[in-house]
This record gives sequence, structure tokens and C-alpha cells, in this order.
Amino acid sequence: MDVARLAGVSQSAVSRAFTPGASIAAETRSRVEDAARSLGYRPNAIARSLTTSRSRIIGVAAAYLQNHFYPEVLEAMSRGLQARGYQLLLFTPDAGRHADPQLEQVLAWRIDGLILASSTLSSALAEQCRAAGIPVLLFNRTTRGTNVSSVTGENLRGGRLIAQFLAAGGHRRMGFLAGIENSSTSRDRERGFFGWLAENGFPKPLREVGLYRFDAAAAAARRLLARTDRPEAIFCGNDHMATAVAEVARHEFGLRIPRDLSLVGFDDTAPARWPSFSLTSFSQPLKPMVDAAVALVCEMIENPEAETRHEVVRGELVVRGSARMPPEGCVSLEGQLVWRPVEPE
Amino acid sequence: MDVARLAGVSQSAVSRAFTPGASIAAETRSRVEDAARSLGYRPNAIARSLTTSRSRIIGVAAAYLQNHFYPEVLEAMSRGLQARGYQLLLFTPDAGRHADPQLEQVLAWRIDGLILASSTLSSALAEQCRAAGIPVLLFNRTTRGTNVSSVTGENLRGGRLIAQFLAAGGHRRMGFLAGIENSSTSRDRERGFFGWLAENGFPKPLREVGLYRFDAAAAAARRLLARTDRPEAIFCGNDHMATAVAEVARHEFGLRIPRDLSLVGFDDTAPARWPSFSLTSFSQPLKPMVDAAVALVCEMIENPEAETRHEVVRGELVVRGSARMPPEGCVSLEGQLVWRPVEPE
Repeated sequence: MDVARLAGVSQSAVSRAFTPGASIAAETRSRVEDAARSLGYRPNAIARSLTTSRSRIIGVAAAYLQNHFYPEVLEAMSRGLQARGYQLLLFTPDAGRHADPQLEQVLAWRIDGLILASSTLSSALAEQCRAAGIPVLLFNRTTRGTNVSSVTGENLRGGRLIAQFLAAGGHRRMGFLAGIENSSTSRDRERGFFGWLAENGFPKPLREVGLYRFDAAAAAARRLLARTDRPEAIFCGNDHMATAVAEVARHEFGLRIPRDLSLVGFDDTAPARWPSFSLTSFSQPLKPMVDAAVALVCEMIENPEAETRHEVVRGELVVRGSARMPPEGCVSLEGQLVWRPVEPE
Repeated sequence: MDVARLAGVSQSAVSRAFTPGASIAAETRSRVEDAARSLGYRPNAIARSLTTSRSRIIGVAAAYLQNHFYPEVLEAMSRGLQARGYQLLLFTPDAGRHADPQLEQVLAWRIDGLILASSTLSSALAEQCRAAGIPVLLFNRTTRGTNVSSVTGENLRGGRLIAQFLAAGGHRRMGFLAGIENSSTSRDRERGFFGWLAENGFPKPLREVGLYRFDAAAAAARRLLARTDRPEAIFCGNDHMATAVAEVARHEFGLRIPRDLSLVGFDDTAPARWPSFSLTSFSQPLKPMVDAAVALVCEMIENPEAETRHEVVRGELVVRGSARMPPEGCVSLEGQLVWRPVEPE
């Protein structure tokens, strides 16, 4: 007895019922599924992948899941890929051996595509996968001068806007807390921040490195805040580091935020909205960024000859209580306050 | 020219170099890898999986990555599986259609094993996979009366110990914030908490449901704290909900913690250690739990006839500032304060 006969449908309907993304009426699909179940039939995706030379698996290299941003990205990305019939195979850097996941493993699994979703992984892996003919997409990072497509937030514009915002709030002596030194996100945010301040005659900000890690950011905050010329305002390279700075400023230095110290973060993750932090933060809108990444990697798989693309997803400077508010420019947008400078950016 | 000849090693050495977990000298391995790379040779793991009938892929069904506990579990689990030559294929529940990932997809991918790593997914999936012959392990949850192996923390003992701790701190009118109603973790924590209090003549705690979600927990906290007979102490079913309760208590009700309200959480995640929360919390030690799960699922794959096992990983009640401290019983252990009741538990 075969599935088609038991379900009373054509063989082609059975095939479509087990092909992710294929068009089939819900009722037909459910008849096929019931029949398959009662016959103990399982479509063997691996055997199918050898025939179609597609595995329907997309590798995602991710690390640094302590930062709220990445787990939310991972969950949304898995949902988005599943909706297109792909599964997410997770690669995490091996702390023992090498910063990159083992290249041989990546290639061995014959993934259809690779998304590098961490600003802390080296770019070498991306280059090698591309050389091996596997489409590679960078997520929340980019590389200059190479041919790898990417989806990022507005790192450069965000950094500039934060500088302008803190200046409009009356601050002059500023600080910057960098993430990982050679990551494109940290570099671009810094370039935007320092660039605007230099162009507008502000002193060069004090600078410390927090490596995007909570403990390292707390240590950097201690160094910054212990100085006699301590900054009046600090732009922290992401929210995760900004929470660490807020904790140290309040609980170790007795500073009131924003009265004694203004803080601005980047990402606009969930903890930024918690009243204890109430972080002013430049947003990286999760859903549009993930949607863009899923669509782009699927396109690259369909058409390996497609042009390299760099998609930049627009963010907003979301204004909350952690930084002194400028007298003008805060406007209400979809239930939250965002900053739109009166003077051109 | 083949890889073995170029590398100057035996064919068997080449095969071992590309078999995850096989024994081979580091130098031989690196010679084989270099030779393979220069010949553009890629071991095809999918083809191999058809020969060995192993895919070396373990499915992990996870959701609820907003809670700090799960992303850290996922990262550690991925590392642990990679170290044993497995890759982690992520399944996330499809919000649109069904609470469970699509069973057909799970089976179709021919995973070697499945870890259900979320207390919010239904148990039906586990039953169906087991029926299909795929080893299933429950992580941070368990089912009574069925034959599915599990790794959990000490939910029952933790609940009892927290009751005893709050009683020793002088509290009488207590509250409990439940997670997902039908999850085993929430049920066992509640059973321990209510059980100890009933056995020791305490009034029945007030009870609200926070569904393990931040917003739902905040709403539940508002209901609990608005009562005229509001509890003096609340045991929150996990840390994620406890942070929400702390935010509402402080910022909406003007309560001081622990002077006006004692709070205890469960999990001992990173935010519990942040000074703003300084949560007293019963720990679920991440590494031992993940190590136990990885070892157990690998054993189940090697030996499908193995007995069902329920591993319970020991935790500690880590004492910080969010709950009134009992006059006795707090002892220092590996740099942190934990509670060891003077009377028997």
C-alpha cells in the first residue's frame, strides 16, 4: 500500500507534500501526512539532498550569546529559514582550538549557505567558504574591499547621530567604549562618533575597550570613571556593555544617571527597556535585519552568480532616561521617543 | 593524485582524519588536511551518513531565547556536541502554525538524536520521535510515567529550600509566581515550595502566573503587589520573571528590596549577579547540566537499548541581596554565599 493510494491523491501531490516550500492545499497536505504516518513512511531528506544536490541546511556561525541581541537573532533566523524550508545548523567557535569553527567541518556538512552572525568571528572562514563555492552572508558585520554580501545596521550614521545627540544635550567631554578592536561594527560606530565630534570642534573623546563583554566593559568603566577628567557622557558600543557601565557607575562610583553621567548604547535590546536601565540606544531592528538576511541568502543559493549586496537596515536613536535630553528634536514615533536632529545630521 | 599519496599517509589515516572523533596524531591530521585542501577535496558528510546511517546531526528544539538561561545552554551544547563530532540543528516552534516544530521536518532530516531544550514545548513531539526510533532527551524538563530520559536541575528540592530560607528570614505571608502551567519545571518548583510551607504550618502562598515571560510576569507582579494583603516575599519561578518583578516593585510601587519585599529567583543566570538585581537564586549549573545531556544523548545513540535515565544536577541556593538573610545558615562556598539550613531540609 503506498501513501498516494491510501491518501487518495496523486504521486505528485505526495512529493509536493514533503518538499519544503512546494505549493499544496492544506487539506491535501494533511491527508498525505496522515496516510504517511499510518504507514510509518518518512521522507528521507538526506537521500533527497543527494538527488537535488541541496541539503536545505544553512549553517549559522554564532557566538557571544550572552548578549541579548544574538539569541533573539538566532530564534528569528531559525523561524525565518524554517518558513522557507531550511533548517539552521549552528556552528560555535571552538574555544579550545581556534577562533573559527573548523573549516573542514563546515564544508563537510555540505550546507547550502553560511551566515556569519557574529561580530567576533574572524573573516577568514567567510573567505574560505566562498572560495569553496558556498554562498556566504555576513550578518551585523561587513568587510571592506572584498566581495562578501552583508546585512548590517546603520553603524556609521548611528555613531554620528549619537555624537550630535550628546552634543545637543550640552555635553562636551565625552567617552567611547569600543567593542572588539577589529570588528567592523565597533570600528564603524567609532568612526561615526569620532568623526562628527572632530568635524564640529569637540575635544577627542576618551577611549577604552570593553570587547563587547560584560566583565571587560565593567573594568573599562572603572578606568574611565576613576579619572579626574572623567567623561560627562559615554557612548557604549552596545547595550550589553552599557548595562555593565551603568552598574559600575551607580553601584561603585555612586553616580546618578543621567544627572552625573549620560549613557547611550547600541542595539536597543530588551534590557534597554527595563526601567533600571532605561537606556537611550540606537536601534538595530531585529525583524527587518533578519528578514533581509534570510531573503538574501536564499537568493544567493538560487542564483550563485548574483551581485554582491550590502544591505543596511535603518535604525532610530530611541530616547529613554539614561542620557540628558536635548531641548529640541525628540519626537514620538510608534509609541516611543526618537531623536530627529533639528539641524541636518 | 589522491590525498593519501600527496600526504604520504595510508588510506586509513585519510579516512580517520575526516571521521569526527576518530583517533589520529595531530601532525598526521594536519598533513592530510593540507593535502586535501590543495587537491580541493571535501569529505561529503551527507554521502558518508548514508553509508554509516549516521548523520552526526543532533536536533535541538529550543525556544524562549529571551531568557538568559537558554542561549547560554545552546552555546554550551553546541560546543559540547561539536567536541564529539556532532552538529546542532536548531528547531524553533513555528509561531504561526503549531506550538511544536513540524514533526515531519524533524523526522525528515534523519537526525541521530533529539534534545528538547525548552520547558515551553509540548511533550507530544518527544513521544512521536521516540515512537519513530529516534533517541530523545528532555533537557530542563521531565515527564512522569513515560519512558523518556531527562536532565534537570533540583526543581523540587530547590522549591522546598527556598520556602525554608524565606521562613528562616522571618517571612510568613508569601507569594509564588508560576511559569508555564503545564511545564514540569514550574510544577515541581511549586510543589516543593507549597509542600514545605504546608508541612510547616504556614499559610498557603498567594499565587499568580507569569508564564516565564517578562511582560506577563510584570503584569502578575502588579496584581500581587496591588493587594492589601500583599506578600512579604515572592518566589519567582525563574530569574527572568524575578527581574520583571523587581522592576515593577521598585519603579511602580516604590518598594525597597529586600526591606519591603524579598525576592528569590531560580536558574542563577548572569543578570542575577548584576548589582541592580543582586538576586538570591537557586542555581541550575549550566556546565554540569549540558555535559550530562551531551554524554547521555551520545550514549543513547550508541546504545539504543539503554535504560531510561533521569539525571538531576545538584544546585545551590545562592544568597545575594534581594531577600532578607536568615540569621544563620549562610556559608561561603567557592567565592559566593550559599544557604545551608541549620535544621534538616
